[in-house]
Amino acid sequence: MEEIIIKKDQIASIRSIELVTDYLENYKYDTLLSYLKDIHNADIAEILKNLDPVLRLSLLNIIDKNFDPEILTYLNESLREEIIETLDIKQLASNAKTLDIDDAVDLVEDLEEKDQNIFLENLDKAERVLIEEGLNFPEDSAGRLMQRQFVAVDENWNVGQAIDYLRGNKENLPEDFYDIYLINNKEVKGIVPLGRLMGSKREIELNSLINKDLRLIDANTDQEDVALLFNKYGLVSAPVINDQKKIIGSITVDDVVEVIEEEREEDILKLGGVDHDDLYESVISTTKSRISWLIVNLMTAVVASIVIGLFEAAIEKVVALAILMPIVASMGANAGTQTLTVAVRAIAVKELTTSNAIKIITKETLIGGINGIIFAIIISLISIYWFDNLLLGLIIGLAMILNLLIAGFSGIVIPLVLDKLKIDPALASAVILTTITDVFGFLSFLGLATLFLI
Amino acid sequence: MEEIIIKKDQIASIRSIELVTDYLENYKYDTLLSYLKDIHNADIAEILKNLDPVLRLSLLNIIDKNFDPEILTYLNESLREEIIETLDIKQLASNAKTLDIDDAVDLVEDLEEKDQNIFLENLDKAERVLIEEGLNFPEDSAGRLMQRQFVAVDENWNVGQAIDYLRGNKENLPEDFYDIYLINNKEVKGIVPLGRLMGSKREIELNSLINKDLRLIDANTDQEDVALLFNKYGLVSAPVINDQKKIIGSITVDDVVEVIEEEREEDILKLGGVDHDDLYESVISTTKSRISWLIVNLMTAVVASIVIGLFEAAIEKVVALAILMPIVASMGANAGTQTLTVAVRAIAVKELTTSNAIKIITKETLIGGINGIIFAIIISLISIYWFDNLLLGLIIGLAMILNLLIAGFSGIVIPLVLDKLKIDPALASAVILTTITDVFGFLSFLGLATLFLI
Repeated sequence: MEEIIIKKDQIASIRSIELVTDYLENYKYDTLLSYLKDIHNADIAEILKNLDPVLRLSLLNIIDKNFDPEILTYLNESLREEIIETLDIKQLASNAKTLDIDDAVDLVEDLEEKDQNIFLENLDKAERVLIEEGLNFPEDSAGRLMQRQFVAVDENWNVGQAIDYLRGNKENLPEDFYDIYLINNKEVKGIVPLGRLMGSKREIELNSLINKDLRLIDANTDQEDVALLFNKYGLVSAPVINDQKKIIGSITVDDVVEVIEEEREEDILKLGGVDHDDLYESVISTTKSRISWLIVNLMTAVVASIVIGLFEAAIEKVVALAILMPIVASMGANAGTQTLTVAVRAIAVKELTTSNAIKIITKETLIGGINGIIFAIIISLISIYWFDNLLLGLIIGLAMILNLLIAGFSGIVIPLVLDKLKIDPALASAVILTTITDVFGFLSFLGLATLFLI
Repeated sequence: MEEIIIKKDQIASIRSIELVTDYLENYKYDTLLSYLKDIHNADIAEILKNLDPVLRLSLLNIIDKNFDPEILTYLNESLREEIIETLDIKQLASNAKTLDIDDAVDLVEDLEEKDQNIFLENLDKAERVLIEEGLNFPEDSAGRLMQRQFVAVDENWNVGQAIDYLRGNKENLPEDFYDIYLINNKEVKGIVPLGRLMGSKREIELNSLINKDLRLIDANTDQEDVALLFNKYGLVSAPVINDQKKIIGSITVDDVVEVIEEEREEDILKLGGVDHDDLYESVISTTKSRISWLIVNLMTAVVASIVIGLFEAAIEKVVALAILMPIVASMGANAGTQTLTVAVRAIAVKELTTSNAIKIITKETLIGGINGIIFAIIISLISIYWFDNLLLGLIIGLAMILNLLIAGFSGIVIPLVLDKLKIDPALASAVILTTITDVFGFLSFLGLATLFLI
């Protein structure tokens, strides 16, 4: 047993990576294997992530037949694929006996079809059937997330009967469980937290120990909704039911914690124009995956330039326009991004819905207007002082007000509309917004200047 | 008991908000109170969030003396403060008896000092002492997050002794618990998951049921590190220890889920230039909190304009420079933001550390160079075709390569340096990056043009 005390700034297991590097470089393979046997699979995954590619390969060669497929569930997709390519899929399948069904489903769904078949064929029939059932549920659904092992007992039993049942079925219990489900004909009638069961005398009826609320999860529910539910009510486990309302599985909070991390990561990355976590990917595949976003951005930048080109004559006459014009566009993009970020997050956690959309749109447009007036005054004064031109100052001020109004309005409406159209707001909102604020920023400033200044 | 089946897209309790609105508008106060008694405090919080301000106030008036302080723990800061102002703090304190200590600490730390004193004075002494102890730990530390109630028994006991102890101390048990801690002189020696305890006969030694690894949390650990730990190892609870390695509390996964949500929300919002979730705040306070960021942005935009101003003569001669110059700056900002986003997230989850920093910096700079070459070719061809000027095309291509190189390098180095300086990378990285890519974008393009074109 290893005792670990977690202190400030000591999570990253740099030490273990240095240790493994040392064992590998000095061919201390026996010490290495016995070290790996003692640590958690999540730590082995972390070591694999951080090792130099050459050392990673030799580590995989040394672990060889003892490779626990659970390690793969702790890796992100790109590294997982890379490592799977070096493994013998048949061997992997025969090591998968201790793998939870939800982890196995998670693993199999990402395999290439050829590998998927080899993997499934080399499993025990019972396990294969359960995994195939899991794969029949939609991607990212409760059905894929759930464990198939859970503890359900007759709703009319008492504490003593439940304890005797648990002791008599030790080998069929899930490795860890936190609630007991009371059922009648496979329909869940109540949930008893283990702690409450433990504190009660044998003759107490289980029915008297149930939670006030019974929250069941339909197997087709999206995992994001499952996560919201667990978070909102502080759940530790919840039963999953099928269309006939019969219990078919159980979701536990550790799986949900992973989902929350995943979904948030996705939102952050997509808002930044990145498709997926590519930290451990090669230069070539990272460049490939990021380029599509940059191409879209190049097109919008060219559109903005075309708009500027419309006012070539004006710029030729008053070069100050070229000097000042990026300010209006940039302020619009930044103010709009603030609104957009709040909106995308609020949509993700279901705080921004059709019921309060009008209220929030009004609010954000108003804020755009107020900011517009404030920054119009500042930039007008700066411009008048800089170029000694009162009219130019008034024009840039007016353009600022218009662009920040548009920015506030677009920042909230774009993600709402995308969400309605079932397009992920985190993915596409930013590029649409900055196109609008750029084009409109240049158009309003240069347009007003052409009308009144030239 | 209310049975809730969670299906696709049905989390948001729009129905319950409509129901409460109806009760309030039609003065059905008795029905309202009995409805509220049946639902979870998290749902009451959600209703308060979504109600119209006037109706919210009348709902608070109706709940009056029965207001459960736990409701406040489900609200975000701004709404919480607004509601607390309408409540009688003495009454709130006397309703706080059933509140977990961690929730009470969470509540008290956000109260104004005057209210804090009133609240603490009106608590039972035992509760007050525990809360004050909690407040002595650093903000966002494990000490503030922990519950003070936990189940710890002698490490030499067997299953029967543990069960008898639990049954005999029912009133002192936490409402929910998932693990039993084995201790010797208050030092934790092992952790037994309840499920494993339940499946074992009375004479089995507890010592034989413990988890392979013992993970203890120092009370001063940052809550983000606690969350990483729970996520990595799929923990459900963990003991918290003081400097003398004695157990003083326990952290459970439901608190950690909240922390993960909070921390991710913070990262997303800060990257978007927003200080905190202001969805439910008034127009004025939202404008106030967002304006500081926009002022910073205005300054950087003015700096970029000053750089453009240096090349006034060049723009006057070749107006195409003004038309094309935003493209170089915009591509730099977007490519840099991609890198930055990946870096900020990787730093948050401790995947980007000093051990792999050089490798990742090299990688991102290389990607910047490759992207630079690709987009240099595209934009050169566009510019040559558009303005029929070969030299102009070559100049914008060269500027693109230089700016994307700088963008890739800065995108990774800025957050790393900020993190080293103990400044939150999510907060300040974006503005520094876009200042660099804007200034350098204009400088390289207009500078090269002045050198070679004019």
